[in-house]
Amino acid sequence: MGALHEGHLTLMRAAKEATDFVIASVFVNPTQFGPNEDFDAYPRRFEEDCRKLESVGVDAVFHPQAADMYPQGFCTYVNVDGDITHKLCGAQRPIHFRGVATVVTKLFNITQADEAFFGQKDAQQVVVVCRFVQDMNLPVHINMVPIVREESGLARSSRNVYLSPEEKTAALVLSRSLRLAKDAYEKGERNAAVLKALVTKEIAGEPLAAIDYVDLFSFPALEAIETVDEKSLLALAVRIGKTRLIDNIILG
Amino acid sequence: MGALHEGHLTLMRAAKEATDFVIASVFVNPTQFGPNEDFDAYPRRFEEDCRKLESVGVDAVFHPQAADMYPQGFCTYVNVDGDITHKLCGAQRPIHFRGVATVVTKLFNITQADEAFFGQKDAQQVVVVCRFVQDMNLPVHINMVPIVREESGLARSSRNVYLSPEEKTAALVLSRSLRLAKDAYEKGERNAAVLKALVTKEIAGEPLAAIDYVDLFSFPALEAIETVDEKSLLALAVRIGKTRLIDNIILG
Repeated sequence: MGALHEGHLTLMRAAKEATDFVIASVFVNPTQFGPNEDFDAYPRRFEEDCRKLESVGVDAVFHPQAADMYPQGFCTYVNVDGDITHKLCGAQRPIHFRGVATVVTKLFNITQADEAFFGQKDAQQVVVVCRFVQDMNLPVHINMVPIVREESGLARSSRNVYLSPEEKTAALVLSRSLRLAKDAYEKGERNAAVLKALVTKEIAGEPLAAIDYVDLFSFPALEAIETVDEKSLLALAVRIGKTRLIDNIILG
Repeated sequence: MGALHEGHLTLMRAAKEATDFVIASVFVNPTQFGPNEDFDAYPRRFEEDCRKLESVGVDAVFHPQAADMYPQGFCTYVNVDGDITHKLCGAQRPIHFRGVATVVTKLFNITQADEAFFGQKDAQQVVVVCRFVQDMNLPVHINMVPIVREESGLARSSRNVYLSPEEKTAALVLSRSLRLAKDAYEKGERNAAVLKALVTKEIAGEPLAAIDYVDLFSFPALEAIETVDEKSLLALAVRIGKTRLIDNIILG
């Protein structure tokens, strides 16, 4: 969606290393925003984005207008109608993943990409994309690239530009709380409720933070678990002021 | 869906003429049947189908099992959510076109076909397929092949095998009523209501026939019209006993 940061550029470098022609799509996709979300406010910095993409050797940029992607009469949506879209971010953003699945299907068909690169920051999105790629038999291979963080620990996000200096400090509670859970996991804690409680308690200590969700699911199936004895996703969404931020870690 | 007849074989010959490698799919797709429809009864004659396909020079047959197409965990559907799926057959068969769009998308992705051939008999299906191919930017070209009829005028259909001899005679009212409308159109009648009434009246004269719909829309937009002054679709669905048959003509 543009407003590119080091997280995106890491995706581009991974793509550059794995393939011989890299296309970046820069498109703030209207169909994945709900009516009261930040579609209009979402940062748009196309010229700066192009300079960054060029600096990492991206071969082409696909930057359509909304009317190119959704012309008059457009009415087809790809709907991933399973549990994986109803929990975590899907619970608060009911049409979000329909918009993601629809636009990503279009991007795959337009570019005919063989390999596609998505960030772990949107881990649920990766799960959803893998699901519809498999269900629709799309001939593309999905690669997940680890989260890129600032030195402070804050996960890189285009939405970080919304944060005031005070909020940016408060936002450190996301990664700090995940690190606490990770430390506990590494010391042997396997109880999902205990790990979630560690995170919740840490965030509750930050007055500017309001929890949207803190949850722990098997990964990539996103099934409820009581004990972390397989690969699992500890994910959270937290509002810092008016800005909704997400972060996660994979355990196991 | 197999139980191949001369209509299907005409599609195969058209494909053979236009391309250098023809794949036929033979798959009775469960997701396009409603709960009270004829999925279980639908005729399955795979060996006979293969002999017929071989006789017209088809290069390969794709004959998956339902569990191959819809394995456990499958949950992605292509939904054409516009007027074009809510009228005609879509009005009585609410999930039908979602099933069609989903399976056809999968077939396109699996086969990577450049050209695809559909019969005009399912004219609304052709409209829906063209719609999602355009909306999803699928790299395939859709060809519509005219309806093939028996000498009696009855449109070829796999469901004709359900008809008793008496019902088969009664079923001639479908094509007869469309011919009446076509004659009137050719003599200058352009009023949509008058043309529809001609069809309805003719069918009402057949005691074994019960009208599901008789409708006239612009083609391929499927918009309501009062006067036939552009290309239009006169389409009907009629139950003959327990068998639901469809037929249509394109005017203009």
